[in-house]
Amino acid sequence: MLTTQRLVNRQWVLARRPAGLPVTEDFRLVESELPDPREGEILIRHQHLGLAPAARLRMSEQRSYRAPLALGDVVYGQASGVVLRSRNDAFPEGAPVVNMSGGWQEYSLSDGAGVFVIDPSVAPPTVWLGALGTSGQTAYVGLLHIGHAKAGDTVVVSAASGGVGSVVGQIARLKGCRAVGIAGGEAKCRHVVEELGFDDCVDYRAPGFADALKSACPRGIDVYFENVGGVVRDEAWPLMNNHGRIVVCGLIAEYNDAHKPGPGWFAILAKRLEIRGFIMSEFPELRGEFIRDMSAWFAAGKIKVREDVSSGLDQVVPAFIGMLQGRNFGKTIVRL
Amino acid sequence: MLTTQRLVNRQWVLARRPAGLPVTEDFRLVESELPDPREGEILIRHQHLGLAPAARLRMSEQRSYRAPLALGDVVYGQASGVVLRSRNDAFPEGAPVVNMSGGWQEYSLSDGAGVFVIDPSVAPPTVWLGALGTSGQTAYVGLLHIGHAKAGDTVVVSAASGGVGSVVGQIARLKGCRAVGIAGGEAKCRHVVEELGFDDCVDYRAPGFADALKSACPRGIDVYFENVGGVVRDEAWPLMNNHGRIVVCGLIAEYNDAHKPGPGWFAILAKRLEIRGFIMSEFPELRGEFIRDMSAWFAAGKIKVREDVSSGLDQVVPAFIGMLQGRNFGKTIVRL
Repeated sequence: MLTTQRLVNRQWVLARRPAGLPVTEDFRLVESELPDPREGEILIRHQHLGLAPAARLRMSEQRSYRAPLALGDVVYGQASGVVLRSRNDAFPEGAPVVNMSGGWQEYSLSDGAGVFVIDPSVAPPTVWLGALGTSGQTAYVGLLHIGHAKAGDTVVVSAASGGVGSVVGQIARLKGCRAVGIAGGEAKCRHVVEELGFDDCVDYRAPGFADALKSACPRGIDVYFENVGGVVRDEAWPLMNNHGRIVVCGLIAEYNDAHKPGPGWFAILAKRLEIRGFIMSEFPELRGEFIRDMSAWFAAGKIKVREDVSSGLDQVVPAFIGMLQGRNFGKTIVRL
Repeated sequence: MLTTQRLVNRQWVLARRPAGLPVTEDFRLVESELPDPREGEILIRHQHLGLAPAARLRMSEQRSYRAPLALGDVVYGQASGVVLRSRNDAFPEGAPVVNMSGGWQEYSLSDGAGVFVIDPSVAPPTVWLGALGTSGQTAYVGLLHIGHAKAGDTVVVSAASGGVGSVVGQIARLKGCRAVGIAGGEAKCRHVVEELGFDDCVDYRAPGFADALKSACPRGIDVYFENVGGVVRDEAWPLMNNHGRIVVCGLIAEYNDAHKPGPGWFAILAKRLEIRGFIMSEFPELRGEFIRDMSAWFAAGKIKVREDVSSGLDQVVPAFIGMLQGRNFGKTIVRL
């Protein structure tokens, strides 16, 4: 039902781009009058905001995976609340909802994109912002569909007591993995093990972190779920097993640094890159397909070859050394 | 047919482990008498050896993806030749074959593992060591099954005139990609474009390499096929497009350096790691599965949540800053 009563919305907007860690002055609280929803729109009264480190990315000028906020924009964030006014039948007035792009404000106006009606009998609204919301879904997708965690794997997750990390380890346990958390401080580590049920948790701030992590992973690491970056990753990396997967979900420790383009883990995240080492001999099942295609291409003159041929067993060593120096021109062959 | 005639085999063995670039003195030519094949074995007379940079990896003491050669071992390499004596029906005497682990020697004795009878009517034996051999299959598997190159992609390959790189670019063209090579020197670059049919090739030794590579990839890079490492990769990396794939096939420029464990591209290759950045919102199709599983787990008490709750819109900014500093304990929520 529409009313003509005007509502005042209070909103946090980006006042200036943070240099490093944000400070209070980077944000400004403004008031604005809310328009009535137009056809297809709903007005949501926010009851809870869920904060996530990824919002920091949008405060920088450099484009990461989403366009940066403009100065004066309401800060990006998720919200739960109730539909106050509706001109969209999918969202009746009074329905409890989460709005994935609600923003740091008291009300949001939406066309329904990214808004979900939630079932409070399953879990309270705040859980729909956490384990049943973006944090939980990020953990679920990253661990199972990107990291392909399976029973018996050792899964290590950084920021283990946080919104995403806490769910990663618990899903890992449910799937039969060994779950090892990394967190800052003894209280968080104790919580991660005693309350969340991880197999182990290592305090990255404590002396001997590298050794403690190694001890916690006696069979190495199969999936490293990256939320933090920096020194935490540096110690996890050498423990990776063959065919290990590193899921780059977040880099909290690096968000406040310059987001310059170019080499680095930040690009892996921002561009959703996939980097994969492989050895051909591990794919013997592809030989038939390869020989079929390549024979046909070669016969049709579509594949040209150039060989760098030496003669005599004596020439093997100089040919090999020259190849390592890039002095060969084509495939290096020695005729006997 | 067995004979009692004794054959003398000449073999290159590893005399000492190379320090950096191998030198002649790292290898020793020895003679040994060949035993007769036992039941199931064949004796192959080598006619061509195919050399590959990966052999350098096995000369170091550090284990990479295969066990290192012992001092005195015949150096690893592939060979084509003919079956001289056979006690294995799959390989009749006189059959032309390639032996994937023939080694740097004049004859090899084999139980048939890694030996393939080749068809000389399709291509001459040296091609079975190259485009139709391990080099070609490595290009094929890496480009299509690891890099998922598809029509319209820009594919960049380093060491573009070499055994693997030359095939990568040609397959890329056959699949409708833009193929850009990187090679050392003008002659190689000209060959790559004029003979092999790549769209472009950039000389990494020429001044202005970075700009030239950028110009050659006006729509960025979708697949970077890595054979070389080092500075060549450093310039390719910033050009990667969203969802780009970096196929780590070889790191010739780094083979002669210390193969120390720990962070680095060498570990990606040696351990066949997969590193992948992702953003949950790009997988909307997984929401149904996630909500179903997570609701059930939550209802069953199998997922515990901890929230770090502040109250009031005023508290959003301090809660956010605290979260970036790791001061939150659990999912960060602000109640309005």
